[in-house]
Amino acid sequence: MAGSFDAAVAALTAPSLEAAATTREHLDRLTKPPGSLGQLETIAVQLAAIAGSSPPPVPAPVAVAVFAGDHGVVAQGVTPWPQEVTAQMVANFCAGGAAINVLARHVGASVLVIDVGVATDVADPGVGSPGGPQLVRSRVANGTQDISTGAAMTSAEVVEALDVGAAVAARLIDEGARCLVTGDMGIGNTTASAAVIAVLTDRPAQEVTGRGTGIDDHRLAVKISVVERAISRIAGKRDPIDVLREVGGLEIAALVGFIAGGAAARVPVVIDGVIAAAAVLVAVEAAPGILPFVFAGHRSTEPGASAVLSHVGLEPIIDLGLRLGEGSGACLAVPLLQAAAHLVGEMATFDSAGVTSK
Amino acid sequence: MAGSFDAAVAALTAPSLEAAATTREHLDRLTKPPGSLGQLETIAVQLAAIAGSSPPPVPAPVAVAVFAGDHGVVAQGVTPWPQEVTAQMVANFCAGGAAINVLARHVGASVLVIDVGVATDVADPGVGSPGGPQLVRSRVANGTQDISTGAAMTSAEVVEALDVGAAVAARLIDEGARCLVTGDMGIGNTTASAAVIAVLTDRPAQEVTGRGTGIDDHRLAVKISVVERAISRIAGKRDPIDVLREVGGLEIAALVGFIAGGAAARVPVVIDGVIAAAAVLVAVEAAPGILPFVFAGHRSTEPGASAVLSHVGLEPIIDLGLRLGEGSGACLAVPLLQAAAHLVGEMATFDSAGVTSK
Repeated sequence: MAGSFDAAVAALTAPSLEAAATTREHLDRLTKPPGSLGQLETIAVQLAAIAGSSPPPVPAPVAVAVFAGDHGVVAQGVTPWPQEVTAQMVANFCAGGAAINVLARHVGASVLVIDVGVATDVADPGVGSPGGPQLVRSRVANGTQDISTGAAMTSAEVVEALDVGAAVAARLIDEGARCLVTGDMGIGNTTASAAVIAVLTDRPAQEVTGRGTGIDDHRLAVKISVVERAISRIAGKRDPIDVLREVGGLEIAALVGFIAGGAAARVPVVIDGVIAAAAVLVAVEAAPGILPFVFAGHRSTEPGASAVLSHVGLEPIIDLGLRLGEGSGACLAVPLLQAAAHLVGEMATFDSAGVTSK
Repeated sequence: MAGSFDAAVAALTAPSLEAAATTREHLDRLTKPPGSLGQLETIAVQLAAIAGSSPPPVPAPVAVAVFAGDHGVVAQGVTPWPQEVTAQMVANFCAGGAAINVLARHVGASVLVIDVGVATDVADPGVGSPGGPQLVRSRVANGTQDISTGAAMTSAEVVEALDVGAAVAARLIDEGARCLVTGDMGIGNTTASAAVIAVLTDRPAQEVTGRGTGIDDHRLAVKISVVERAISRIAGKRDPIDVLREVGGLEIAALVGFIAGGAAARVPVVIDGVIAAAAVLVAVEAAPGILPFVFAGHRSTEPGASAVLSHVGLEPIIDLGLRLGEGSGACLAVPLLQAAAHLVGEMATFDSAGVTSK
């Protein structure tokens, strides 16, 4: 397993066109009108290409990794939530009371919480229940610097955060995970994500900056102007890792490494909302070979998320107007991914069932 | 339990506004930004209103009922599939090899297959495995008459089919089901559904007639003209049960009764695609009090399905370009409905988790 971002990128292989073609043909022999399973057919073909086998294996066990980090840019008043909420929510994740815990239990996924850059103290969760959420302390820094006035991270920090993510992916896969789900927590992280997305999709701040947790018009105007200052500060820069270092975040960087780690091991990675979208954008600009291993779990209401999906060409699986983060939307998509694999593997064919084809 | 359609309609009660309000308030105390769970919050509130309790119970056990019927209108060349495929697919359902079987297993639902009007012989499925799909022989007629030239059913037949559906709902609920999923099978049934929908939503045939299993342009033109003939034959009629009798189908009528039966027992009913949409339209026009108990599992690619959803005001849960029927899209939505209930019941509040609210 590739435990660093660079090693993961170097280990990338191509998806299997042969397994994809075999699955595509098999789908048309199943007892249903051709194409009638819609996007589930596309998903099944992609799962086969990722695994290199047809029918594709059911993506399970499922592991959610929630990367937590803080953002110096909160000093600019981009959010009404106090910074200590990041650490409080980490405690909530460890205690099993957050939305992602409920959803992970529902779909049979494990939850790993990674402090990659929380600014305040994270209490010891104590001994968790077997199979319950676990905390990993991999703090690279006590949050980022304010992106509106300077670089979010040093060069050493961004590399370290990328590697934390890649190592978490490698660990989870070593422990048996065959489907990775991205999660995130960080007060202020929709601001950093918007900045990354604005630069790398070449769109104005206004087009990719959203209301995050649900801020009002006044605060949205402040947030947009903060994103504008951040991106004009680095005008002309386009190298994805450099953009990540300048205007990104520690949890975003860790997610880039995590996604790369899953792709390197040929394990499907289901991404959540706008934070993961910023990460996948950086990942794919740095190494386009990552994209075939990624599924967009859902369409977040954040405009930046949709901007990335259309920029890189990902079709979201669910669209329920979610804007919670934590991995919630991606987790909800897991049963649908699994359904696609089950259908290919278990449905009867026209021949086997004795059903007349048209 | 109300075993007839009329008894079901008479037994309808109002959803609980109090349980809905309690759930709405509780959602805003949970550790998440207000409204950030999007449509899952609306679903949770509706589940609470249906059950009359907050938090709402998780909708389970889940029972899928697949109603099968044939359509005399296939004589007009509206589909390339031979009529015997209906009976062959019933056998496939009973053997567990169809898409709905795979999906039901995946979400932990049971499958009951009801021959309410297949035209050809349905083979004895033999002894099924425990918990496996079961066949109910409740054939009202050997398919309908050709709707382009005369009424699909007699008055006695439509009543009998409605009652078959209501009785199936009552039976499944008696056996413990707390979530009903509509399924259907019937070569030609998108034609009958389009005719019902055109009349009851007052739209031209062209707007609500789709490609069904994926027919070509030529056959679509034939299908539209057949629907036009059917609806002009009954010009001026608007009574929903009369329209159902004239241009509907036996499995559509059974679905009307099934939906009413679920609603009468305050059990959520998740409807599938265009066939169930035609049924829910008839049901709601006949008894508007049914609507609060219905969830639209998905948005089918059939234009008639979307016409009904906007006409009655239902928001689909998933949208994956499916056009298979059988209950497949509705079944896929079940884990999302269950997730909504789990979230309300299991998430920590800001107070209980010690998380600072904004």
